[in-house]
Amino acid sequence: MEKQLNLPIPTVKRFPSYLRILHQYHEKGEEFISATVLADELGLKPIQVRKDISYTGIEGKPKVGFEIKELVKVLNHVLGWDNTNEAIIIGAGNLGSALACYNGFKAYGLSMVGLFDSDEAKIGKQVGALKVMPSSEIANFIHEKRIVIAVITVPAKVAQKVADDIISQGIKAIWNFAPIDLKVPSSVALQRTDLATALAVLSVKMQNKLDSSEEDLG
Amino acid sequence: MEKQLNLPIPTVKRFPSYLRILHQYHEKGEEFISATVLADELGLKPIQVRKDISYTGIEGKPKVGFEIKELVKVLNHVLGWDNTNEAIIIGAGNLGSALACYNGFKAYGLSMVGLFDSDEAKIGKQVGALKVMPSSEIANFIHEKRIVIAVITVPAKVAQKVADDIISQGIKAIWNFAPIDLKVPSSVALQRTDLATALAVLSVKMQNKLDSSEEDLG
Repeated sequence: MEKQLNLPIPTVKRFPSYLRILHQYHEKGEEFISATVLADELGLKPIQVRKDISYTGIEGKPKVGFEIKELVKVLNHVLGWDNTNEAIIIGAGNLGSALACYNGFKAYGLSMVGLFDSDEAKIGKQVGALKVMPSSEIANFIHEKRIVIAVITVPAKVAQKVADDIISQGIKAIWNFAPIDLKVPSSVALQRTDLATALAVLSVKMQNKLDSSEEDLG
Repeated sequence: MEKQLNLPIPTVKRFPSYLRILHQYHEKGEEFISATVLADELGLKPIQVRKDISYTGIEGKPKVGFEIKELVKVLNHVLGWDNTNEAIIIGAGNLGSALACYNGFKAYGLSMVGLFDSDEAKIGKQVGALKVMPSSEIANFIHEKRIVIAVITVPAKVAQKVADDIISQGIKAIWNFAPIDLKVPSSVALQRTDLATALAVLSVKMQNKLDSSEEDLG
């Protein structure tokens, strides 16, 4: 078994940005990059970058820094982006359909292979490359395809029931877009992305900016 | 001018959840709700709920709590969800198109009225209710429709340039889905939603859970 890395979440959150810069420098023909350059590009402190990268086990070379190809490979591996995980989406409403159509996940090792809904009017509808399947088929689908990742885009009031059901079928990671805090066993990974809350924060920030600029004027 | 509320962001983030519970209790026929009930529903402490709501100026009544209708109205107002803001989406790739098709934003007072791209192959394409327009028309569109909110879904390497351009045309709030930290003047509200980072965190959390369950077994 591989050594467990126990990566701090803030470090994980910076890894996609590191990868982006590394790809840019690779495209420019660079072979090495220093922690200082990476830090400058992202507005971080070099010591932070060095500490983050130390978790991967990669060591920089004196004067030149980190080998870009090697670092890209290891970061992709740590993030699980170097192999493709198949995932299902539960809830074929607007958001679920949008995510089913979004091809961008493939770059991050995620492939949406099933889209489910309990609304009979939606069953059989073509959404991007997927056809909406009835919720009654979720359990079989998970077992047959050995799916471990599910994206939940159902309304808040049914999200916990959906989560309980799919966890009992073997789902190990849930990406929850429903506006509710799901309760899951400690063995299940959970990540929440709440567009409504992001929009609420933006809206209030904008109002505060507008208010203070009016104060400035008068 | 209205009194500026200066809401703390963590408070703002809880408001959408309060609204969801309030709607549930309203549907059940309830007229009042206590801070304790709201807190229980969301796994918060009653003192936190009371403090959050105190920012709105609404006061609870002894024994019965807050009047649901009044609290819904004020929270929607504070969040800017009681009037519709028109917004544009810049970048008609997979994610931009997905967001253009997503009708769920209307409930939060946001209506997507324009979708732009610099790629000629995409111009004129119908995406949901919108037709992709050329980037060269953004400035006119912002002025004519008095747009202040923009959603950025372009690749990271052009996102800062796009942001600079639209801010110079009068955009006051940017919802950034590009995987990069944009630099904007202090007068502009900025909110970032990064799906790649959310997915990275989920992926690593899952790996850590799987690793530790293997350790348990062995």
